[in-house]
Amino acid sequence: MESKDTKGLSRRGLLGAGAGGAALGALGGRLALGPAALGLGAAAGLTAGSSTAALAAGADGGIAPGQLDDYYGFWSSGQTGEMRILGIPSMRELMRVPVFNRCSATGWGQTNESIRIHQRSMTEKTKKLLEANGKKIHDNGDLHHVHMSYTEGKYDGKYLFMQDKANTRVARVRCDVMKCDAILEIPNAKGIHGMRPRKFPSSNYIFCNGEDEAPLVNDGSTMTDVSTYVNIFTAVDTESFDVAWQVMVSGNLDNTDADYEGKWAFSTSYNSEMGMNLADMTAAEMDHVVIFNIAEIEKAVAEGRFEEVNGVKVLDGRKDAKSQFTRYVPIANNPHGCNMAPDRKHLVINGKLSPTATVLDVTKFDALFEKPEAEVDLRSVVVAEPELGLGPLHTAFDGRGNAYTSLFLDSQVVKWNIEDAIKAYAGEQIDPIKDKLDVHYQPGHLKTVMGETLDAANDWLVCLCKFSKDRFLNVGPLKAENDQLIDISGDKMVLVHDGPTFAEPHDAISVHPSILSNIKSVWDRQDPMWAETRKQAEADGVNLDDWQDMVIRDKDDPNKVRVYMSSQAPQFALEEFTVKEGDEVTVVVTNLDDIDDLTHGFTMGNHGVAMEIGPQMTSSVTFVAGSAGVYWYYCQWFCHALHMEMRGRMFVEPRDA
Amino acid sequence: MESKDTKGLSRRGLLGAGAGGAALGALGGRLALGPAALGLGAAAGLTAGSSTAALAAGADGGIAPGQLDDYYGFWSSGQTGEMRILGIPSMRELMRVPVFNRCSATGWGQTNESIRIHQRSMTEKTKKLLEANGKKIHDNGDLHHVHMSYTEGKYDGKYLFMQDKANTRVARVRCDVMKCDAILEIPNAKGIHGMRPRKFPSSNYIFCNGEDEAPLVNDGSTMTDVSTYVNIFTAVDTESFDVAWQVMVSGNLDNTDADYEGKWAFSTSYNSEMGMNLADMTAAEMDHVVIFNIAEIEKAVAEGRFEEVNGVKVLDGRKDAKSQFTRYVPIANNPHGCNMAPDRKHLVINGKLSPTATVLDVTKFDALFEKPEAEVDLRSVVVAEPELGLGPLHTAFDGRGNAYTSLFLDSQVVKWNIEDAIKAYAGEQIDPIKDKLDVHYQPGHLKTVMGETLDAANDWLVCLCKFSKDRFLNVGPLKAENDQLIDISGDKMVLVHDGPTFAEPHDAISVHPSILSNIKSVWDRQDPMWAETRKQAEADGVNLDDWQDMVIRDKDDPNKVRVYMSSQAPQFALEEFTVKEGDEVTVVVTNLDDIDDLTHGFTMGNHGVAMEIGPQMTSSVTFVAGSAGVYWYYCQWFCHALHMEMRGRMFVEPRDA
Repeated sequence: MESKDTKGLSRRGLLGAGAGGAALGALGGRLALGPAALGLGAAAGLTAGSSTAALAAGADGGIAPGQLDDYYGFWSSGQTGEMRILGIPSMRELMRVPVFNRCSATGWGQTNESIRIHQRSMTEKTKKLLEANGKKIHDNGDLHHVHMSYTEGKYDGKYLFMQDKANTRVARVRCDVMKCDAILEIPNAKGIHGMRPRKFPSSNYIFCNGEDEAPLVNDGSTMTDVSTYVNIFTAVDTESFDVAWQVMVSGNLDNTDADYEGKWAFSTSYNSEMGMNLADMTAAEMDHVVIFNIAEIEKAVAEGRFEEVNGVKVLDGRKDAKSQFTRYVPIANNPHGCNMAPDRKHLVINGKLSPTATVLDVTKFDALFEKPEAEVDLRSVVVAEPELGLGPLHTAFDGRGNAYTSLFLDSQVVKWNIEDAIKAYAGEQIDPIKDKLDVHYQPGHLKTVMGETLDAANDWLVCLCKFSKDRFLNVGPLKAENDQLIDISGDKMVLVHDGPTFAEPHDAISVHPSILSNIKSVWDRQDPMWAETRKQAEADGVNLDDWQDMVIRDKDDPNKVRVYMSSQAPQFALEEFTVKEGDEVTVVVTNLDDIDDLTHGFTMGNHGVAMEIGPQMTSSVTFVAGSAGVYWYYCQWFCHALHMEMRGRMFVEPRDA
Repeated sequence: MESKDTKGLSRRGLLGAGAGGAALGALGGRLALGPAALGLGAAAGLTAGSSTAALAAGADGGIAPGQLDDYYGFWSSGQTGEMRILGIPSMRELMRVPVFNRCSATGWGQTNESIRIHQRSMTEKTKKLLEANGKKIHDNGDLHHVHMSYTEGKYDGKYLFMQDKANTRVARVRCDVMKCDAILEIPNAKGIHGMRPRKFPSSNYIFCNGEDEAPLVNDGSTMTDVSTYVNIFTAVDTESFDVAWQVMVSGNLDNTDADYEGKWAFSTSYNSEMGMNLADMTAAEMDHVVIFNIAEIEKAVAEGRFEEVNGVKVLDGRKDAKSQFTRYVPIANNPHGCNMAPDRKHLVINGKLSPTATVLDVTKFDALFEKPEAEVDLRSVVVAEPELGLGPLHTAFDGRGNAYTSLFLDSQVVKWNIEDAIKAYAGEQIDPIKDKLDVHYQPGHLKTVMGETLDAANDWLVCLCKFSKDRFLNVGPLKAENDQLIDISGDKMVLVHDGPTFAEPHDAISVHPSILSNIKSVWDRQDPMWAETRKQAEADGVNLDDWQDMVIRDKDDPNKVRVYMSSQAPQFALEEFTVKEGDEVTVVVTNLDDIDDLTHGFTMGNHGVAMEIGPQMTSSVTFVAGSAGVYWYYCQWFCHALHMEMRGRMFVEPRDA
């Protein structure tokens, strides 16, 4: 996988090494040497200063042609509905992975394999709605968060998980092939927003916040009676990818995270008021963070202490239920971000409408459950509450005890030290704030490298800004957002790169390549992705793994035709096939090429049909054949010098012929 | 638009200036000074060489944070179906403009405004096919080429044009707002591939190649009789965006271009054989380039010398018709690229299966039409035929008489001089080849800055490579393609940047920002994009330009509801509205914010509905309401600190209530 790069040895490490070839690598790789060190100032008339440092750092983190990036970045894409893979520090987009969106290139949302993934857990309500709207699947999504599966507090390179706020879903991407293999529509909950995997002992659950308030039995009978409204916290079993259990809470749920001992999950609530409009949602001075006690919840599930609603085990963790499932720690106005520090101990809740971050000590949480909620001092777990600036939204961490909080209103990142904040809260005269950096503009999430794991690194911070305004050439009323790369290796933060991105780079994580050495370049022929298609082929007597050029008319339904064809650059196994007007045609293509990067495509002309078939992959698509005539199909993935000649004809005979 | 950059003055110019602040700008902007000039070699132990030069050039063309790019790049995206805007030399993606694809973020392909654009020219055949497939529009495309409109041989910043090979369409993007405003399905033709605007006097036409062979009357009656097959060359009127005329040709049509006097268009044909499979398509040693005589065609159209087929004027330019519309110049095996040089004189046809490029002198074309085709020496227009290497696909030009040809099989770019090639063809002992550079890997299109205009520049070349293999961190079986940025300012080409891109960066142009000073940041309320929606509002007595919070049930169809609401951060005008199960609901949102970059969104929870509403824009979407219950709608475009609280409820009442 890595032919020429610095696996296991960072560029920063190389810089330290200093000798001959290493120095060359370092210069090309990062250009991070200050101008003074290189005598550049004298030669080119530079003056020192932080902007000069940023220039010298190389505007893209200094990845030269052919050099590999130091880290994988996995980006959510908000309303675009895809997952993105970026390289860090080059900030280049290495791949788009379609998840909730309809992808014209790969056929995601159109191939039978992807439609099966979309439909596997659809609720009856959604099926009915889609039918009324003439659709098979929802072809949009609002993918805010992407997180990798953990083993013992560290990324394990197995899965990536993500949610869809728009249509109340979560999804899983297999890291070995970087394709989505499961989508789950979560019943009962509304608008899945915060989503995180459990960190310890392993990610057997992802925790999913239902942001929107609605009646638990949402059938129209109590629509205007807000007292019937609830919000739902869901644990999804990450292997079966079904709901494990749900907990009803008081207030709504925004962002979530989990601790490093596997005991807790926590969620912010900006609408503890259960307000139904802006004024009511922001009315109370204090909202809260909900602490979920996993052991107590699992015990109740095991003991049958739940209600089954729409096939799901639902527990009542609302305040009035006086359960041991939850505790509600008061936090100032409309808290948003919820970030567990890699010190295994501290949880940082971000104020949004309060200029503070609130630091909770998770080792004190047990005490909250020793007595009923009414009898404990819920704020006893608060160990710091530094005033950071206006609009603190999210916090990231390095491996040196520092926190980096985005200030939406100030358009800044503030670097502060957790231990110093704790000392200050205890009364010591110490300023926890170490540095502030202007960002451009209105930052939301921000992330350090591996900062959500026990391997938190100290080199890069990406800050995802919601507005770019004047930072790029004007491209019209719709402007890019701005992913900024910040060097945090020194005492001062240094802005290194502005990265324009299409709506919207909501959240991101970054991962060292050594964790992802399992990524394949060629599909395994036995991959479960096309297991259903394989079954169909076997029933048709077709060996999917061998050369296929079969056209089979269904014995039971004479209007259904299945076309099996292999592809090998630059040819399809079938140069032509014949169907009838109005036939339901299923085309199954297997790419028999087994060379890295040799992807084929299948496009049926004038039928709105196109799909990707990677090396050794099988893909299928079903469509109704149009009016009588000749239609060409072709390979749309440039595969060979004679790629354009890789095409064949579908003859559609008139229905009455 | 440009707050801080070098408008009208290139970074290269700054480098030349040398003094104080300018030198700083140059260093940050490009880091293009050679290591020797800076004393860098000595300081860091570098050795000279081209790879060192490339490293020193900065891996991304050296655009520092906050600096604007020197040029707009407009990228096609192949099977992704969108247009992309990149910055050059940073090679950052500044925007995605959905055209043929379904875009989850903007709602393109779902909003009423975009569906109207898709449907405006749909053929009856397509309408019928879509209905049979339960769809309203084709939601995929294969967008190979993007070109800007010209006035007198130079870009005029008015429109961008593009085609869809998959579904035989062309589209237009308005440069002032960078949104698609017209899509045309071209009747009779099949698989629009090559597409170019006329260059002189202005782009009143785009020329569109039908690549695929089929019966002109494609109704199934002569499907297997290849003698009835034709290929169609189409001129589209760029203002009305309808077909102006079509010409039937012999052989198929691949790439196309036009001259700088407005007299000719030309298209390569790799299937002069009219073969129906790979072997037959590559059988003949010579194929051809077709020359279209615009004046003769227009004269025939004016005189009524055409056949009307599916409402379109079709002329017969096939060889047997012995017309004055076309000439067929023999070119070696399966020519592909077709590129007019900015010297106003030379057309370069690329060999693909021949190692040669063939240079035609367009000033000699008149002579070909002075006698019938059989009586002229068709090859008399050939003035050079340099042997360049294996798999020449496309050629780009600088402003110094040099050509740059991509060699697909050799994975190289070859730089050669046109005049020297002409001299060599005439027998002089001179090598036209000036330089060769390895690219990574299998290059297709390549483009210089403004190289398809009379303003061809001499600084950058982008080379779009189909395979990236080992150039980036492994992201699975599907890999990025690779847009490489090459510095062509010196004698030797220098590779400066590897740019991974999602399938597929088929073609690109780049344009100086001074040409695009017309780009808006805020929509004009009278924009025609929502003219139909405005009409509907007026009929409903709603003033779209003022605060709207109206819910109107259609008088004639009681199952139709129209919801008009304004948005102003952080609120929608309506906190709630009520409909009935199964109602057809149209939501019309007008963004009354008029601040740059302040885009709103409208997402209807669990309904698969989301759309963009830019500053001062109106967008609308129609859907069937689902089962009874409460559904939240929200703004999915981060617009304010209280963005998450920007939401409201749709109450869906039971049908029988």
